[in-house]
Amino acid sequence: MILSKLREDALNIYKAGLQAVDPHAAILKHCSRQGDLFLVSNKKYNLGGFKNIYVVGAGKAGAAMATAIEEILPDEITEGAINVKYGHLAPLKKIKIHEAGHPVPDEAGVSGTQKIMSILNQAKEDDLVICLISGGGSALLPLPAAGISLKEKQDLTGKLLACGADITEINTVRKHISQIKGGQFARLAAPARLITLILSDVVGDPLNSIASGPSVPDSSTFQQVLNIFKKYNLESDISDTIKQHIQNGLTGKISETPKPGDSIFNKTQNVIIANNFQAVSAAKQKAEALGYNSMILSSAIEGETREVAKIHTAIAKEIAASGNPVKAPACVISGGETTVTLQGNGKGGRNQEFVLAAALNLACLDSVVILSAGTDGTDGPTDAAGAICDGQTITRAEKSNLDAEKHLNENNAYPFFEALNDLVKTGPTNTNVMDLRIILVGVA
Amino acid sequence: MILSKLREDALNIYKAGLQAVDPHAAILKHCSRQGDLFLVSNKKYNLGGFKNIYVVGAGKAGAAMATAIEEILPDEITEGAINVKYGHLAPLKKIKIHEAGHPVPDEAGVSGTQKIMSILNQAKEDDLVICLISGGGSALLPLPAAGISLKEKQDLTGKLLACGADITEINTVRKHISQIKGGQFARLAAPARLITLILSDVVGDPLNSIASGPSVPDSSTFQQVLNIFKKYNLESDISDTIKQHIQNGLTGKISETPKPGDSIFNKTQNVIIANNFQAVSAAKQKAEALGYNSMILSSAIEGETREVAKIHTAIAKEIAASGNPVKAPACVISGGETTVTLQGNGKGGRNQEFVLAAALNLACLDSVVILSAGTDGTDGPTDAAGAICDGQTITRAEKSNLDAEKHLNENNAYPFFEALNDLVKTGPTNTNVMDLRIILVGVA
Repeated sequence: MILSKLREDALNIYKAGLQAVDPHAAILKHCSRQGDLFLVSNKKYNLGGFKNIYVVGAGKAGAAMATAIEEILPDEITEGAINVKYGHLAPLKKIKIHEAGHPVPDEAGVSGTQKIMSILNQAKEDDLVICLISGGGSALLPLPAAGISLKEKQDLTGKLLACGADITEINTVRKHISQIKGGQFARLAAPARLITLILSDVVGDPLNSIASGPSVPDSSTFQQVLNIFKKYNLESDISDTIKQHIQNGLTGKISETPKPGDSIFNKTQNVIIANNFQAVSAAKQKAEALGYNSMILSSAIEGETREVAKIHTAIAKEIAASGNPVKAPACVISGGETTVTLQGNGKGGRNQEFVLAAALNLACLDSVVILSAGTDGTDGPTDAAGAICDGQTITRAEKSNLDAEKHLNENNAYPFFEALNDLVKTGPTNTNVMDLRIILVGVA
Repeated sequence: MILSKLREDALNIYKAGLQAVDPHAAILKHCSRQGDLFLVSNKKYNLGGFKNIYVVGAGKAGAAMATAIEEILPDEITEGAINVKYGHLAPLKKIKIHEAGHPVPDEAGVSGTQKIMSILNQAKEDDLVICLISGGGSALLPLPAAGISLKEKQDLTGKLLACGADITEINTVRKHISQIKGGQFARLAAPARLITLILSDVVGDPLNSIASGPSVPDSSTFQQVLNIFKKYNLESDISDTIKQHIQNGLTGKISETPKPGDSIFNKTQNVIIANNFQAVSAAKQKAEALGYNSMILSSAIEGETREVAKIHTAIAKEIAASGNPVKAPACVISGGETTVTLQGNGKGGRNQEFVLAAALNLACLDSVVILSAGTDGTDGPTDAAGAICDGQTITRAEKSNLDAEKHLNENNAYPFFEALNDLVKTGPTNTNVMDLRIILVGVA
């Protein structure tokens, strides 16, 4: 098969995946209106039963999600406020947008969150709160516990990262020095009814991790926080304010995060409106429509990027050699999010690095195209979503005096693919369900 | 499904894979006798046309392969000699066995190789040489170029490894300071006809890599060897003997390794009699017979073991969550050989480490069993071939006060699985086509 056709197909398969997780479309797919009824997934709400409807939330897809909610409830929304990443805007009528810092939270985020808090403070028994959560929601919804500054909170997270605490430990601490995370948002919304619509950017869609689980029960405790401080010998390193806060939690002066079984969760509904699996499923559907024998490998791929690339190319080689696990013309799709252990100071992102590593492993394997790109349009700190390569990429690079191995070793995939015109650019997509990787193997 | 049934099935699927690459059976599958005709794969040889038939070779499976050849040609073999790893013996009639050192070559290996050389020196135009190659064949067939000592050769390999030379560079050097590697064996066998029967222990079965390609053309050159020495600043570090040898190669005083197109290869046939793909294929067939929806992921899996484990468990999770890439009851099989970057001084091997990392990633996923084991019966420096785990392994370990993460971090999987009675032991199998990994996901 002609490489240019495979490349075109790979891009179209990726775009089909993107479309399936468009936040606006995802809201309309899960929420609708039948007269006075508001239908959310498998539940029905009588709009006449609510005095006020408030819309709040945070995340990169916030504006697009809010637009859809305003379309469904054009006259019913009392008031609303959402925090989004700088520049991630959309025209809204009732819901106020606050731009804020991401991935590093800033004071604009805190002031936006305070606005959200003031709305929640008004919410009563017969009100409805709709909460819109998407990727970046944790950094974009910062509200340290009373007395703790944003900087203190960030310093502590930095120290935990530096001493090798794992993500579960970091989240346990974060939930206990926040006013929002770990189910506390649900407590603030109570006694109103709470519907949380979630665009998942975490592998496996664990509700207690996405945006630090603002509206679901939390099983972690102040005691565990203390144990984590002890484990990493951080006790002397922690500010007095945080120390006092944890102490107050241990003695019961400050409430624990809401635990499983707490009655506040009787009036909550959490709905994943889009996730990585939907993107890979739509990509698979498109690939099948284009005539490829298609397979979803997994939507939960994690690990060191160049190692993950090795396995993807091993699968491509097996398809070419023996027709396993699927016969050519074949499409293998995977999702999830890999990590990069930095070795150099180059420009790139995990998707571009994946494609560069894959290109090196492909050698001169004909009729193979590999694409990897994020669904948010921004791979690492670059303006590309990802990159695309084929079995001839390294040969083409050598002709242009581009040293692929050197670029990989320096985490410098962007200039490599820029020079070859092989970056995948989408612009901001206003969504984020992690990454898509597409392997196409044509008939040799 | 009951875990014990899944475990039993996983072991039986692994054993089916092993059986398919039994060296004796593999020879009989590819070589046979019809009266005076000797059939080797797609070729026929008239035995009456040969004055002498010599059988030589090296590798862990050598004895089992030689037994089969003696069965097919009980009266025709003139003489033979093979080098095997210490203890890898079998009763033979005509072919002499030399035990030798592996993975570190020793003088016993050199003296066995000299015996093989003396046989090859007798081989004439109307003779047939049958060469049996299997895993370990490179270390078990050591014969440094004239004047170079085994120790000098090993020192140089050590230096190349230490300075980060890749396997292609190391092989280029090795082939040019050997009398056997890189097609030179074929030159020694000429003008006799040469049939090389190969049990492949290298990913992708590249004939020029298996046992350093004794009977296939070599494209690398003395000039490249010099360039590698320069690249790694090794010129001053190299013994005078080796320096002089390379110099003689550059000036043509010593022949280059035989290149593609050399007429000596007109009378050679190379046959892969068993490889990893055959093992994974047989495993798949067995899994299907046991009622699993089965899939070969790839027989060419390489990479850092614990990262490879992450992807395998991500696939298991996807099967459990969505029925992709195959519906439960599902069996995913992969082959190849991973690497372990040592962090500790524990006891284990890549297969045991894979299973330990997988167990940690599985958490409490029910109805999943993962097995990884080598086909040679020896995983790392242990008496186990590998190990097996399921979604309850970590819980069981905790009850026995076994810290899975600690064992993983110390590359200490053997005592972990020994305590749980979850080692997979086969004893020496006399074969080696790398590893088999089997994921079973039962109906929840």
